[in-house]
Amino acid sequence: MPVRLDHSSPDFIKRFQALLAAKREVSADIESATRAIVDDVAARGDAALIEATKKFDRLDLAPGGLRITAGEIDAAVKACDAKTIDALKFARDRIELFHQRQLPKDEHFTDPLGVELGWRWSAIEAVGLYVPGGTAAYPSSVLMNAVPAKVAGVTRVVMVVPSPDGKLNPLVLAAAHLGGVSEIYRVGGAQAVAALAYGTATIAPVAKIVGPGNAYVAAAKRLVFGKVGIDMIAGPSEVLVIADQTGNAGWIAADLLAQAEHDVNAQSILITDNRALADDVERAVEAQLATLPRADIARASWNDFGAIILVKHLDEAAELANAIAAEHLEIMTSAPEALSAKIRNAGAIFLGAHTPEAIGDYVGGSNHVLPTARSARFSSGLGVLDFMKRTSILKCGPDQLRALGEAAMTLGQAEGLDAHARSIGLRLNLP
Amino acid sequence: MPVRLDHSSPDFIKRFQALLAAKREVSADIESATRAIVDDVAARGDAALIEATKKFDRLDLAPGGLRITAGEIDAAVKACDAKTIDALKFARDRIELFHQRQLPKDEHFTDPLGVELGWRWSAIEAVGLYVPGGTAAYPSSVLMNAVPAKVAGVTRVVMVVPSPDGKLNPLVLAAAHLGGVSEIYRVGGAQAVAALAYGTATIAPVAKIVGPGNAYVAAAKRLVFGKVGIDMIAGPSEVLVIADQTGNAGWIAADLLAQAEHDVNAQSILITDNRALADDVERAVEAQLATLPRADIARASWNDFGAIILVKHLDEAAELANAIAAEHLEIMTSAPEALSAKIRNAGAIFLGAHTPEAIGDYVGGSNHVLPTARSARFSSGLGVLDFMKRTSILKCGPDQLRALGEAAMTLGQAEGLDAHARSIGLRLNLP
Repeated sequence: MPVRLDHSSPDFIKRFQALLAAKREVSADIESATRAIVDDVAARGDAALIEATKKFDRLDLAPGGLRITAGEIDAAVKACDAKTIDALKFARDRIELFHQRQLPKDEHFTDPLGVELGWRWSAIEAVGLYVPGGTAAYPSSVLMNAVPAKVAGVTRVVMVVPSPDGKLNPLVLAAAHLGGVSEIYRVGGAQAVAALAYGTATIAPVAKIVGPGNAYVAAAKRLVFGKVGIDMIAGPSEVLVIADQTGNAGWIAADLLAQAEHDVNAQSILITDNRALADDVERAVEAQLATLPRADIARASWNDFGAIILVKHLDEAAELANAIAAEHLEIMTSAPEALSAKIRNAGAIFLGAHTPEAIGDYVGGSNHVLPTARSARFSSGLGVLDFMKRTSILKCGPDQLRALGEAAMTLGQAEGLDAHARSIGLRLNLP
Repeated sequence: MPVRLDHSSPDFIKRFQALLAAKREVSADIESATRAIVDDVAARGDAALIEATKKFDRLDLAPGGLRITAGEIDAAVKACDAKTIDALKFARDRIELFHQRQLPKDEHFTDPLGVELGWRWSAIEAVGLYVPGGTAAYPSSVLMNAVPAKVAGVTRVVMVVPSPDGKLNPLVLAAAHLGGVSEIYRVGGAQAVAALAYGTATIAPVAKIVGPGNAYVAAAKRLVFGKVGIDMIAGPSEVLVIADQTGNAGWIAADLLAQAEHDVNAQSILITDNRALADDVERAVEAQLATLPRADIARASWNDFGAIILVKHLDEAAELANAIAAEHLEIMTSAPEALSAKIRNAGAIFLGAHTPEAIGDYVGGSNHVLPTARSARFSSGLGVLDFMKRTSILKCGPDQLRALGEAAMTLGQAEGLDAHARSIGLRLNLP
């Protein structure tokens, strides 16, 4: 059973904080094992990569077999159901249109002293996209990572995806093809992350690595951070639904279960000011679980991490939502915009009864790679800016240097950095 | 002596790659020591923080003594030279004006299907700013971190700064005061990072930690990453100067030394198409070293990591600059803008002979916290966006859900996520 909290009960704060603090993932101590794999690939390149692939994926490759050929990709696309390919194209086009609006503008201005200032955005030149194998190989995630990179202007988008026992989801290759991925290698795990970061004879290195993976992949990304850029470390997924008496219990239950079916560590929370709705939702969850293919996973998630929180007023719901900082927040109330305006911390907000989170997972257009585990307090979902960087630009002439120079020299001297001061003084003919 | 490379010599690529690969910092294995400190503060709060401060800073504090009082800050400001305070105010105002232009705009649009889409930016609520003690306590860095946070709208900016043996640079307190810092604690090291991330009875936790520190601080930031956000891990500073025959050897030498005086691990590189200028710069560096207070540091940096690279054409210089991806790039050529347009990878570009990098360190207005160690290939200097996060917003009505629903259900089923599909199908009365 999910926990039930009542905002008006005396032990609420204590129980709410326990809910916030609950660790949903046990982080095994795999750093030294991961470091050994990463160091080996950094030192020995393809040979180490091929050995690790043989060991972990039971797949025996020659260097020439690392890359998935254009012919294999074509064959995979043809093997896919046409309706699914059309749905992927529909999703791709909507993701592209949404993300084009995120392209930042360069800035150039001249201040009252005549100093020219500004900045210029440019795309990262090469990006690696990690795609998990097995059941977590989601073609939608390929699009969500590849399309913003292409919109940003990244010329080389490299995908790595393990094919354990040689098996590969053709839809993942189709999504890569539709998303503009330029190279695909059939490797995974920490060894693939290392290959992307350090490069091998076959795989040229990239400047940034994005995409979700298992604990080894996450540990490898942490290790190579600095050598290359990385995106966030994704945790288990979560949804928070805020609903009032207008909420449809069946729809809410379906949304809670759509989150719970991802992973036994996923978390689904309902906050409502209506006790009858809370009871109805709990019953509807049980009823829907009876016919759900992934019921075992969803039930474990709902029982272990699910929660229903009763509040007196929806204002309290907004306050709690800001503390929870959910990855996905659905607002199903009579005035969702008014409540949304009070939300400071959330990865994505879904407004009204007809915006189930699953729309955002696939075809809304916005990105489904979002901050988990309360990190929406300090980070954003994936977007075009994650594939670009900003170079600031400054230009003074002699008059501007004279206008700025004295203050800069004063500060340089105050910090004990005389060569700083001198680099200005020399130009101004000052002692 | 700095290394000399010639772009036209047969071993150039090999020697250039060795220059790029040179590790300028030895990373000692301090992770387990750091982890012990962080875990102790997370578990025991103030008591552990006070013990660590006694041990590492030789400073015996009671919980009531952790926070620096308003009276102490006032006294520090009054103890500072008025001219230096004025220079800090001048810098503060210019940094503020520059960074105000970085404030992002929210987006809201309705697509042809009637789907409402967009995003909203909001400030991170609480940010911790780490400021090193000792010689690296730069008041200018306090401004460069605090002002963008305030411009972003962060309400609580908390500073931690160690005061070894009770000593504290009054200019650092003055800069904090001018920069809008709301709380200051006299603690440092991994213990201060842990206190900011986990909170103690005295120090409420923050959501993100920024600012440079020693190896323990950097290791602690890596450890708490995920629990809170962190900025980049800063490495030793570097400058790349590109100059042609119009370059002034004395000015260039001064700029190379302004970088070298920071740290024995700093790096200063000159690329020029003019051999005579290269020789003149090398002589000028030697001459200026003779009278530089921090000559020992600057000489070690220049001898160990300095480089002069001769090219035939400035186009080659641009290509090499993109591979180096320098933190600071000065372009002192007859047409600096034309060369600048070819630069893709650099933290900041300083155009023309009258824009020494030291101007950007203090009073240019742009941020001096910039990506080091080639990370300008994938990251940007500090800015307002580092103190904000973006929440995406999606809204469908019944008609929009009908228009999008089928493709989303197709993809949900293709991914084996039936509860996803069902959350849409229920609303559309589909089986």
